[in-house]
Amino acid sequence: MIRHPRKTDFPVSAVRRYLEPGPIVLVSSHWRGAHNIMTLGWHVVLEFTPSLIGLMISSGNHSFELIRASGECVVNLPTTALTDIVVGIGNTSGAEIDKFAHFGLTAEKATAVAAPLIAECHAAFECRLHDDALVDKYNFFIFEVVKAHVAARPKHPQTLHYTGDGVFMVAGKTVSRKSLFRPGML
Amino acid sequence: MIRHPRKTDFPVSAVRRYLEPGPIVLVSSHWRGAHNIMTLGWHVVLEFTPSLIGLMISSGNHSFELIRASGECVVNLPTTALTDIVVGIGNTSGAEIDKFAHFGLTAEKATAVAAPLIAECHAAFECRLHDDALVDKYNFFIFEVVKAHVAARPKHPQTLHYTGDGVFMVAGKTVSRKSLFRPGML
Repeated sequence: MIRHPRKTDFPVSAVRRYLEPGPIVLVSSHWRGAHNIMTLGWHVVLEFTPSLIGLMISSGNHSFELIRASGECVVNLPTTALTDIVVGIGNTSGAEIDKFAHFGLTAEKATAVAAPLIAECHAAFECRLHDDALVDKYNFFIFEVVKAHVAARPKHPQTLHYTGDGVFMVAGKTVSRKSLFRPGML
Repeated sequence: MIRHPRKTDFPVSAVRRYLEPGPIVLVSSHWRGAHNIMTLGWHVVLEFTPSLIGLMISSGNHSFELIRASGECVVNLPTTALTDIVVGIGNTSGAEIDKFAHFGLTAEKATAVAAPLIAECHAAFECRLHDDALVDKYNFFIFEVVKAHVAARPKHPQTLHYTGDGVFMVAGKTVSRKSLFRPGML
């Protein structure tokens, strides 16, 4: 089915390259032999070094307890090749099905966390819980990205950006204004 | 210069329509007669009702103190019509210039906050500080969107999504999978 992109190591301080434009991500988790995947749109970059990102993971999700108990997850970046799977994962519960098996996805061993990478995704970011101060009140987890795996090509993957009402915006053309940026502002 | 889009009221619980896909925004602020604008890419939707969003506003920005002191801001959504202005605002400091005057932008009176709307933007969300628990540690402000103004057209504006290194991705084509969504998951 979907081709596995070959991924190489990527500097964790530069994950904004993939996360700042706000694509939909697939979050994989593992706890005591169980794993799961959820579709997530609500995330934010918080710091370069350490590489911090915030994820709003609703407590209604089956993944919430796995992530809360393990303090770990992997943020995987799907492209349009996975559009229907992204919707399917959002529509189903890991309490009822094994999402890797059901959607024909490949769980790959991560380096620093027990949660698996999703081989079919363009990039995968291994995350360890950094601060849970806002979990009880907002379901907002602050994670440190401890290892990043990114496919070398394409440089600008066709990511999905949810706009509500069942409609995704697909990443479009790129425009460079590099020459206008002050040094240090890139 | 840039045409002012005519904006109408919009339900605050639906701001994800514009903010979940992670576009670059312009944050305007006001405190004791001074106003300012900053370019921001690091933001996240946190809740529908109340309508909560999180903004990572680095303390190095002139806007930080204005927003911290007033507990208010307006999140404005620029389109590609403002690309060079978005870069220019990110390159300059409100400590040195009046950004509204310098960039020829129109400050419009907001309804619920003292910070001005930027008339040339496609949408504007009036925000009031909801929780500053993570401001000291992460410069992360949680705001409630108390009033939303959105231009009726185009339905899918050409927003800018920063990808680092001076390059923006422009919002691309849209794909609907509405028919595949379970009710309540939209």
